[in-house]
Amino acid sequence: MKGAIGIDLGGTHIVFSVINPIGKQITTMTLPTQAHKGGKHVLRNILTGIEQLIRKTPIPKKQIIGIGLGTPGAVDRQGTLIGGAQNLPGWEGTNIYRPVQNKFNLRIVASNDATIAALGEARFGAGKGKTNVVMITLGTGIGGGIVINNKVYRGTHDMAGEVGHMTIIMHGRRCSCGKKGCFETYASATGIVRTAQDFIAAYPKYNSSLLLNKLKSGESLSSRLIYFCAAEGDSLSLRITEQTAEYLGIGIGNLLNILSPDIFIIGGGVTNAGDFLLKPARRYIKANTWNMIFNRTKVVFAKLGDQAGVVGAATLAFDTFN
Amino acid sequence: MKGAIGIDLGGTHIVFSVINPIGKQITTMTLPTQAHKGGKHVLRNILTGIEQLIRKTPIPKKQIIGIGLGTPGAVDRQGTLIGGAQNLPGWEGTNIYRPVQNKFNLRIVASNDATIAALGEARFGAGKGKTNVVMITLGTGIGGGIVINNKVYRGTHDMAGEVGHMTIIMHGRRCSCGKKGCFETYASATGIVRTAQDFIAAYPKYNSSLLLNKLKSGESLSSRLIYFCAAEGDSLSLRITEQTAEYLGIGIGNLLNILSPDIFIIGGGVTNAGDFLLKPARRYIKANTWNMIFNRTKVVFAKLGDQAGVVGAATLAFDTFN
Repeated sequence: MKGAIGIDLGGTHIVFSVINPIGKQITTMTLPTQAHKGGKHVLRNILTGIEQLIRKTPIPKKQIIGIGLGTPGAVDRQGTLIGGAQNLPGWEGTNIYRPVQNKFNLRIVASNDATIAALGEARFGAGKGKTNVVMITLGTGIGGGIVINNKVYRGTHDMAGEVGHMTIIMHGRRCSCGKKGCFETYASATGIVRTAQDFIAAYPKYNSSLLLNKLKSGESLSSRLIYFCAAEGDSLSLRITEQTAEYLGIGIGNLLNILSPDIFIIGGGVTNAGDFLLKPARRYIKANTWNMIFNRTKVVFAKLGDQAGVVGAATLAFDTFN
Repeated sequence: MKGAIGIDLGGTHIVFSVINPIGKQITTMTLPTQAHKGGKHVLRNILTGIEQLIRKTPIPKKQIIGIGLGTPGAVDRQGTLIGGAQNLPGWEGTNIYRPVQNKFNLRIVASNDATIAALGEARFGAGKGKTNVVMITLGTGIGGGIVINNKVYRGTHDMAGEVGHMTIIMHGRRCSCGKKGCFETYASATGIVRTAQDFIAAYPKYNSSLLLNKLKSGESLSSRLIYFCAAEGDSLSLRITEQTAEYLGIGIGNLLNILSPDIFIIGGGVTNAGDFLLKPARRYIKANTWNMIFNRTKVVFAKLGDQAGVVGAATLAFDTFN
């Protein structure tokens, strides 16, 4: 049986997995990223991980057709990080392909992590059997990936799917990218906290609220806490989640209008809110999507959880080298 | 020499052309659409046009590999108009493929007109030699087309590229599609007129303005008049064009963030405003695009003018049947 190595490089951990052609993870292991030690050290950890994985897995090395790697940022054709990986200092400018090829004599392909996660979900997760798939990952920021005719669309410079920086509010919130009004300043986990801060500041002082009580008792403001309080019926939290759903509806609606895929997948930690997120979001997606498209497009949650990245990475290796 | 027939079905005219594999129009003719006479009559005019074109052109019929047709709205795999062609009453529900195949024994493929125009511009116009191309057409509304890996991307239901209905202003202007805040209510030829109406209503009564004088003397408010007055230095008109450029920058920026193409093409009648449109628009595109993408993407005007549709239609026939 053939296999491909998938690698998902995150800010805190690197996941390595040997995966077979039908998306099954044969051998999986994790190493810390140690991002604070700099780009060279991260690369060394990647090489160490590949070495250990090849030693561990029952798939013989000559059956491994290549390596796929998902990383924050964008990667050029020669395998060099060309930017956009703020949480990995010193990672920009690193060439990934050469050291891997030299050390293991294996072919490697790398791309943006959200793009690669979309490929994983499209092929083996919520988008299985679908031709055109768009996925967004709601985390600290918002990443996006586009699969067209069953193939990942990376854009000319591996930068397609930067949906988190779509402007949804003119003259809106300042984003870390330097722009204003970016989708991710409203609908990510940090976006909902910013919305909560606005709502709390405007909330009548004499009104009580479960959320405010929790904050007073020392809990910190997070998307998780807001959805917990909303589930308990707290009206302040419900208004915050409703507003967040509207922002989410604008961003998703825009993507549907532009790309009209078979299926739209929402992934990332924020989806733990479940129906509390998806139900109101659906109303606002409808309000922001051309009705001919809305009526024909499924919007669902991701299925592979935090394994979408590593599965997608191996899938990209199969697609590229098979 | 081989040829393909391109047909561009518009609200008032139908353009027919035999085109060779390098995009040259060998024989071109035009018939009125007669949209008010209903869908069946429009179809009859298309059949008549094909018949006349085949008779006129020096390319022998057996050298014609097929027919491509661009139409308002969306077309399903069987060649039936499934909607979105408001300016052609009774056209929805019409099957185009069967009567054409029966009458001429030629294969035919049809798709949305803006999608097809983008293919024409990508292959033989402003996008020549580029792999990934996005185009918008600024007219009464805003249409869009996406070319990925040199092939037109139609979306799952021929509805990709409905960029005119992207929401750029939350709770914004009411659109004829039923949504609010659609890109085309702000940046199309009718959008700029709506913006002008807002600015005129808020303009101090005692101030003079070339635009207001023209309107008082009986000229009607149009994008053309506004750009004319702006070119004359009229400050009211300059403010209207500046605001329109900002709206345009949001929509185009969003498309660049999502699709990161090699080149972005702006077409349609509004581009006659030339640098008066493009110069301020560029500033706002920059303000609304992730800088890594903006620095790598060209934004240019279309080159084929009103022939993009017919050239694109023949190109789709070559791509589909060759």
